[in-house]
Amino acid sequence: MSTAPVAPEVVAYVHDIARRARGAARELALLTRAEKDATLHAMADAVEAGAAEVVTANQEDLRRGREKGLPENLLDRLTLDEERVRAVAGALREVAALPDPVGEVVRGSTLANGLQIRQVRVPMGVVGMIYEARPNVTVDAAGLGLKSGNAVILRGGSAAGSTNARLVELLRGALVGRGLDPDAVNLLTEGGHDAGRALMTARGLVDLVIPRGGASLIRTVVLESTVPVIETGTGNCHVYVDAAADTEMAVQVVLNSKTHRTSVCNSAESLIVHRDAAERVLPGIMAGFAAAGVTVHGDAEMERYAEAAGAAHVPVTDEDDDTEFLSLDISARVVDSLEDAIAHVQAHTSGHTEAIVTGDRAAARRFIAEIDAAAVMVNASTRFTDGGEFGFGAEIGISTQKLHARGPMALPELTTTKWVVEGDGQVR
Amino acid sequence: MSTAPVAPEVVAYVHDIARRARGAARELALLTRAEKDATLHAMADAVEAGAAEVVTANQEDLRRGREKGLPENLLDRLTLDEERVRAVAGALREVAALPDPVGEVVRGSTLANGLQIRQVRVPMGVVGMIYEARPNVTVDAAGLGLKSGNAVILRGGSAAGSTNARLVELLRGALVGRGLDPDAVNLLTEGGHDAGRALMTARGLVDLVIPRGGASLIRTVVLESTVPVIETGTGNCHVYVDAAADTEMAVQVVLNSKTHRTSVCNSAESLIVHRDAAERVLPGIMAGFAAAGVTVHGDAEMERYAEAAGAAHVPVTDEDDDTEFLSLDISARVVDSLEDAIAHVQAHTSGHTEAIVTGDRAAARRFIAEIDAAAVMVNASTRFTDGGEFGFGAEIGISTQKLHARGPMALPELTTTKWVVEGDGQVR
Repeated sequence: MSTAPVAPEVVAYVHDIARRARGAARELALLTRAEKDATLHAMADAVEAGAAEVVTANQEDLRRGREKGLPENLLDRLTLDEERVRAVAGALREVAALPDPVGEVVRGSTLANGLQIRQVRVPMGVVGMIYEARPNVTVDAAGLGLKSGNAVILRGGSAAGSTNARLVELLRGALVGRGLDPDAVNLLTEGGHDAGRALMTARGLVDLVIPRGGASLIRTVVLESTVPVIETGTGNCHVYVDAAADTEMAVQVVLNSKTHRTSVCNSAESLIVHRDAAERVLPGIMAGFAAAGVTVHGDAEMERYAEAAGAAHVPVTDEDDDTEFLSLDISARVVDSLEDAIAHVQAHTSGHTEAIVTGDRAAARRFIAEIDAAAVMVNASTRFTDGGEFGFGAEIGISTQKLHARGPMALPELTTTKWVVEGDGQVR
Repeated sequence: MSTAPVAPEVVAYVHDIARRARGAARELALLTRAEKDATLHAMADAVEAGAAEVVTANQEDLRRGREKGLPENLLDRLTLDEERVRAVAGALREVAALPDPVGEVVRGSTLANGLQIRQVRVPMGVVGMIYEARPNVTVDAAGLGLKSGNAVILRGGSAAGSTNARLVELLRGALVGRGLDPDAVNLLTEGGHDAGRALMTARGLVDLVIPRGGASLIRTVVLESTVPVIETGTGNCHVYVDAAADTEMAVQVVLNSKTHRTSVCNSAESLIVHRDAAERVLPGIMAGFAAAGVTVHGDAEMERYAEAAGAAHVPVTDEDDDTEFLSLDISARVVDSLEDAIAHVQAHTSGHTEAIVTGDRAAARRFIAEIDAAAVMVNASTRFTDGGEFGFGAEIGISTQKLHARGPMALPELTTTKWVVEGDGQVR
């Protein structure tokens, strides 16, 4: 993105939408759960009823994408057929079934002077989302926003422009049908990237911005935003196989963490194996890598095991240690001790998910205590760091920052709190 | 502050300290509560034992401040005599007595696949504080940081330079005496304002920056920081006296909110009175204002009541509505309805504390629901928004943002969480 000032007409466009969203947010904050759930069902019905139009709009996006030479994997993520549209609508109904975080009393007490204080969950207000290709994020964000009482301002990728516009039109129609302010769900359709920049600097109008997408998008938002941000996504996840690891478990956890789905933030990007386990576990791991087509970026010892098992391999570089490949590649090193493994992870973690495979209780406890990440796994695949897997029912992203939310973010993470203090005229 | 790039040697100086603080933070994160409490007591003893030296250093600061023509109220906030030093040490012992937030299991469950997940409080890591004159903040921040397992990097005001340096020397000595890494507590003594700027852009080295001080300091940190920030302080607090307010209660709550202590963020800056209550409540309020020396920035009706009671008054301006006076001034308007009062507060709130005085249950419920602020008071002085008053025992500041912490921040707000996932080889 450019660092030139955003054109005043783009700022005016975004601020106008944000001001109207604030008005809608006031209404949303007062809705009961029953009203919100009925609205979510109305939104799901509207999306389903409009499925054919959505697919037509999506085909326009796909045609434009092909003309521009978008890579096949992006085109695939962009594609919506009627079945996928129904799944998107179904996700709204699942959000309706989740508990309402708004109104939850987080803590409370009666003070010595008789004042009754309670900390209550309330909506954030206006939440901005800046994201890339997948149009299902548009509907998910609108649904999670509505359930948590927030108005949303969406700045989706231009590649999905027609699809997003049609989806948001359907969602806004459903709001109007329920007698609600359609400005609860907004799509920035003008201003291109600059609209996103205006959004992330609309202090006082926007309460939170969540970027979701590639590392460069997230970096731009984190560095340029003056609105509070939740950083999501980057996962340079390690699996450390300890000296005391069960052989079969180590093989399964490593292979699942790396190969179950490579394009996601909770897949493993680095394998660390204790020297004492190498001979036991690496033949099986490397055979699995060979079968799955993984390229091992290994130190000399790792390359030897890869070679023996017929797995592709290249020498590991310092840069590989910090690379989130999101592909069938993995950096791999043999270490001499648990201490060295912990030091390596501490030096290269992106703070997402780090796993140890071990049968040694002391090693597990030490790894849990010393690794600073959103999730620390013992004897489990890194792929479990996920709102759905954790039982949250829905996920707006995975936070890799420490402020406010860390790990999978669901409905409660889209709220803040308010202290309510009730008295009988108390003064100090 | 300047927007010129920070000199490389200042960046290097701050980054070097931050890297050493990160090392210390790893050690702090593993300390038991007993070890931390014993260290807090050792720090308190060291500050008390060094009281005479601290007072000497403070006198240097005061002499320099007088030479520079610092206003009397700032000199007063800067002053430490031996009694105040003992109070500062006592605050460390109070922190020792508070529960340790680290290790608290916030939530947890066993998933269908047998994975046991739990969300556990852990320290933030390295916390930066940028603040102004009062040297007690130096010791408070170090104490709260240590108890919550965080290393702190302090950038205090230059006016308190000698005092802060001596205090931090004593605190670091106590850490060494307990066999701990002194880099748990750091003071930026070089680089002036630029050291603060280097601190707030040290992404990856500093986990959180908290500015504490005047509005311009806070604004600069919020706008320039690329490290996550918690915005503190600005309080344009309103007291709304409803039609159904008890007369005596209204007078007491308004006077206490405005005049108990004017220089603090939780004092009232604006008075809104329902037309139907004006004749009952305003004579008493204005008489109190006259006695306390408050200047009323009022609309025509408010000015009439002020005049009748002998209180100073000037016509209210639009700017007054958004001004945090921090002085014996108050903006004041008569409104026609609860709706108008809520709309006025919504338009001008800084999100700190807003109060209603009413005997009408419906009015109170509506004010609570519709006002978006860190604290909403019913029939209580705005002055109660305070960590000490809320029973937190200590306070690092009052957050006026919605992300992470809202309202008085104490020990739990200086922590983040980590998901610990334990399994038996589960894969997806």
